[in-house]
Amino acid sequence: MKKYNISIIKGDGIGPEIVDEAIKVLDAVSYSCGFALEYKEYLMGGIAIDVTGTPLPDETVEGVLNSDACLFGAIGGEKWDTLPRELRPETGLLNFREKMGVFANLRPAIIYDELVNASTLKPEVIEGVDIMVVRELIGGIYFGKPRANDGFKAYNTMVYTKPEIQRIGKTAFELAMKRDKRVCSVDKANVLEVSQLWRDTMEEIAKDYPEVKLSHMYVDNAAMQLVRNPKQFDVIVTGNIFGDILSDTASMVVGSIGLLPSASTGEKTAIYEPIHGSAPDIAGQGIANPIATIVSAAMMLRYSLGEDEAADKIDAAIKKALKDGYRTKDLAAYDAKEIVSTSEMGDIIANYI
Amino acid sequence: MKKYNISIIKGDGIGPEIVDEAIKVLDAVSYSCGFALEYKEYLMGGIAIDVTGTPLPDETVEGVLNSDACLFGAIGGEKWDTLPRELRPETGLLNFREKMGVFANLRPAIIYDELVNASTLKPEVIEGVDIMVVRELIGGIYFGKPRANDGFKAYNTMVYTKPEIQRIGKTAFELAMKRDKRVCSVDKANVLEVSQLWRDTMEEIAKDYPEVKLSHMYVDNAAMQLVRNPKQFDVIVTGNIFGDILSDTASMVVGSIGLLPSASTGEKTAIYEPIHGSAPDIAGQGIANPIATIVSAAMMLRYSLGEDEAADKIDAAIKKALKDGYRTKDLAAYDAKEIVSTSEMGDIIANYI
Ligand SMILES: CC(C)[C@H](C(=O)O)[C@@H](O)C(=O)O
Ligand SMILES: CC(C)[C@H](C(=O)O)[C@@H](O)C(=O)O
Repeated sequence: MKKYNISIIKGDGIGPEIVDEAIKVLDAVSYSCGFALEYKEYLMGGIAIDVTGTPLPDETVEGVLNSDACLFGAIGGEKWDTLPRELRPETGLLNFREKMGVFANLRPAIIYDELVNASTLKPEVIEGVDIMVVRELIGGIYFGKPRANDGFKAYNTMVYTKPEIQRIGKTAFELAMKRDKRVCSVDKANVLEVSQLWRDTMEEIAKDYPEVKLSHMYVDNAAMQLVRNPKQFDVIVTGNIFGDILSDTASMVVGSIGLLPSASTGEKTAIYEPIHGSAPDIAGQGIANPIATIVSAAMMLRYSLGEDEAADKIDAAIKKALKDGYRTKDLAAYDAKEIVSTSEMGDIIANYI
Repeated sequence: MKKYNISIIKGDGIGPEIVDEAIKVLDAVSYSCGFALEYKEYLMGGIAIDVTGTPLPDETVEGVLNSDACLFGAIGGEKWDTLPRELRPETGLLNFREKMGVFANLRPAIIYDELVNASTLKPEVIEGVDIMVVRELIGGIYFGKPRANDGFKAYNTMVYTKPEIQRIGKTAFELAMKRDKRVCSVDKANVLEVSQLWRDTMEEIAKDYPEVKLSHMYVDNAAMQLVRNPKQFDVIVTGNIFGDILSDTASMVVGSIGLLPSASTGEKTAIYEPIHGSAPDIAGQGIANPIATIVSAAMMLRYSLGEDEAADKIDAAIKKALKDGYRTKDLAAYDAKEIVSTSEMGDIIANYI
């Protein structure tokens, strides 16, 4: 029997609850598809600070590097917000991304027919939306140097090199080849030098993909167009901070940030996580929506393990659960037949497999 | 009779058409309220490049500095996009903002009851929205140095000093005092040093305004919340590029970017302009919506000239025109009784005064 080593990082807030449900579903699907998953758990974020004194212990980095893929929940919380920057949960996450070399963060935004009313956008605006946001994840202003804050003046550097842009650009074009063959590159080239290099490099890459239609959009306009007419997009490729903002906007098109998964892939072990945060305000109450994490687990099966059939089964089970009217509290207002807890939702999806 | 000197910059694309309509309305209102406006026209942007070889001629800077207020249309177009950066229309605009010292860009987003269906957002989500976006306009990554692009590596610097943050922060708190007394400061303090200084400084300013409630939001979450529940906001204050993105998002809440005005104020002459661009694709066809520019003219009367009664008259005339079912093409689908041209809309609003 095939066996995979999966590293698990539950993190803070609702992280443990939602990851537990994803594991439940992974167990069901691996059993039914005839492969085995071996999990090893590691610490990161606030809990790692509390237990080990650092947000990213060396064992976590080592352990994940030696695994086939990493499933991750969420980190952070007010409790750690006043620590010095290098000791904060977020710093652990950013260092983790860098150490894993996960330069490409894929954030698909797809509408579930059953939840077309969950968005604040009108149904006719969002029906059929299928966007893939490709966000550069280990460069740009998140990591640029110099950076400083002396209490009077503070600055950060938004920087990209051509090879960094090339690798994320190629990822986007390759994805577009398997989709509707359209890439929209988002930048602010009318103001920023770094965006001009981004744009010029995208144009160069496009020459290698004559079948793909490349367009460019300024980031302010893109934020507007995502709300005005999201159906116009296929693949969106953009830098780290623009991608952070635009993928959150895209999540609202879909209706709930509790539905959206992400895959961070690159040179080493890939990381799969929901795009939402650790939501400390609702932690431990059994009301968090585990679907984003469960879809992330399906992405892991598909992209890192090549277990497409198992991934399809998970996707189908989620659709069936939604179709049958099961809803966690965040989606209670949208055609719910029964409001279920975090773990009940996990049970239902696992049972449908 | 009181007399004011108004500098006029029509710019490119639809700029001349929409500014002409605003002047028509200003003439009507100044006549009816008993003051005189004297206009002087100056060049900026693409047309300035074509006529004088530079996007911001010295006479423009001089002329506007010597005027009581500046009414501006829009600049830019593909024709000039391949020029070296220092010769582009946008560079002219940025230098202009810097030379006028207009650090505070006010972008109100208010719903017209008559157009509540024009937004892609559901009516119940947007009814009653009244947001004031206060965007820092002459600092941040737009102007930060060093900046460079050598074709292999490119970078920009996002920088703020405490005094820069203090003056924009004070502007936001003063505005909040006249509104619902809530300021939401938007940053990315979990990642950026420059945002940490921003946040700390906002906290300091808040001490001088005990009646105002200050909250903080990360920019990714703010982009999401503007779509999820825009009614939660009163005043939003943020840096240059975040404000660029968020005010465009806010415009979609309102339904059409053709409705939103802006005021840029600071140390010297204030600038009033629509938030939309020069839209070269529809220029010269008489289909542009002049309302954003006409509302900008009303803001000019209110903020720079203290002619509140005249400003109220313009606002009322616009509302009446919309209520009576007059629509430019962009709003044709929303309860239109009659589709009118750019200049017809100007006539109607002027007549209602
Ligand atoms: C927590 C934070 C550092 C992170 C980011 O900005 O990348 C989050 O917003 C995300 O999008 O994964
Ligand atoms: C044209 C461009 C330079 C400008 C900006 O980014 O400030 C525009 O988008 C705006 O918002 O006024």
